[in-house]
Amino acid sequence: MTQRQGWIFVVSSPSGGGKTTLVQHLLHRQPGLRRSVSVTTRPPRHGERRGKAYQFISRARFAALRRRGALLEWAKVHGAYYGTPRRPIDQALAHGRDVVLNIDVQGARQVRRLARGRAVLIFLLPRSLKELARRLMRRRTDSPAGIQARLRAARRELACARWYDYTVVNGRLQDAVDQLEAIVIAQRCRTRR
Amino acid sequence: MTQRQGWIFVVSSPSGGGKTTLVQHLLHRQPGLRRSVSVTTRPPRHGERRGKAYQFISRARFAALRRRGALLEWAKVHGAYYGTPRRPIDQALAHGRDVVLNIDVQGARQVRRLARGRAVLIFLLPRSLKELARRLMRRRTDSPAGIQARLRAARRELACARWYDYTVVNGRLQDAVDQLEAIVIAQRCRTRR
Repeated sequence: MTQRQGWIFVVSSPSGGGKTTLVQHLLHRQPGLRRSVSVTTRPPRHGERRGKAYQFISRARFAALRRRGALLEWAKVHGAYYGTPRRPIDQALAHGRDVVLNIDVQGARQVRRLARGRAVLIFLLPRSLKELARRLMRRRTDSPAGIQARLRAARRELACARWYDYTVVNGRLQDAVDQLEAIVIAQRCRTRR
Repeated sequence: MTQRQGWIFVVSSPSGGGKTTLVQHLLHRQPGLRRSVSVTTRPPRHGERRGKAYQFISRARFAALRRRGALLEWAKVHGAYYGTPRRPIDQALAHGRDVVLNIDVQGARQVRRLARGRAVLIFLLPRSLKELARRLMRRRTDSPAGIQARLRAARRELACARWYDYTVVNGRLQDAVDQLEAIVIAQRCRTRR
């Protein structure tokens, strides 16, 4: 066990902002990073594997986790509940490992409050709202009305980018991954006060 | 001309800490960065070219620059005066260029105060004081007594690393350059508040 305490990297973006892909690339480059597996009550999307990015659980189970304080943060997004189990995070940090959380703006706010200076908030900006709409349509998981709702939410979420520590524009994938990785490496050089 | 305002990256290290070499590598990787040319009253070392890292000037000329407020920061280090001409920095920043200053802890303090949140302070730590002594001896520019004085100063300066934003250990050159570069890239993603 090391004395070093880990950092929590929080990555948020509007729905369809491409955070899942980017974080996968980041983890590939920085294998020391631990990815948190969120729990969610939404059904798996086509191609999503159980326990990879999400653990898919029932509403009853989600409520039970929440009641007994097992979630570091939770939020209701587009009608489904999402949460981050607290234990794996605490364990990783205690062992000096850095953790990546892929969560929405509500969750990010909670983590910043709870993590007391150990959280680094990164907002992924789509190149434009038009680009975001294209991504959502390509994904084929939402109805036109669902896509409209996600775009309205995106406009609200983009306003939150201001209180994040970093913003990365998700234009060219390689550039965005370079920037994410630079933020992780730089943060590890931060002077502890 | 862009709206973006540049950052001032201040790199300090104890004498013999290897900052000149590291910053050269950084500039090679990030050609958009502007290096500030300091003025100094110390004589050039073997192999140092006029106007590259330093402009070598007389004490009288240094005093004149200082009097008319042409220096962003200045300090007396090991008996010689060092200073950063203000104009090239102001011009670079106004054009949205980032600047690297290679200055000592006294100068760094002044720049932080003057730059109002635009300065990013990076301290290069030698792997150890022993390693630092080896570098100073290899350089062959100082007498044994001079080296001892530099090592005493180094101990004082290392205590200053605490109030820098970042510390980079100058162990393997490649790692140290990677970290310096990551700090620059990450800083450019910082959210402006």
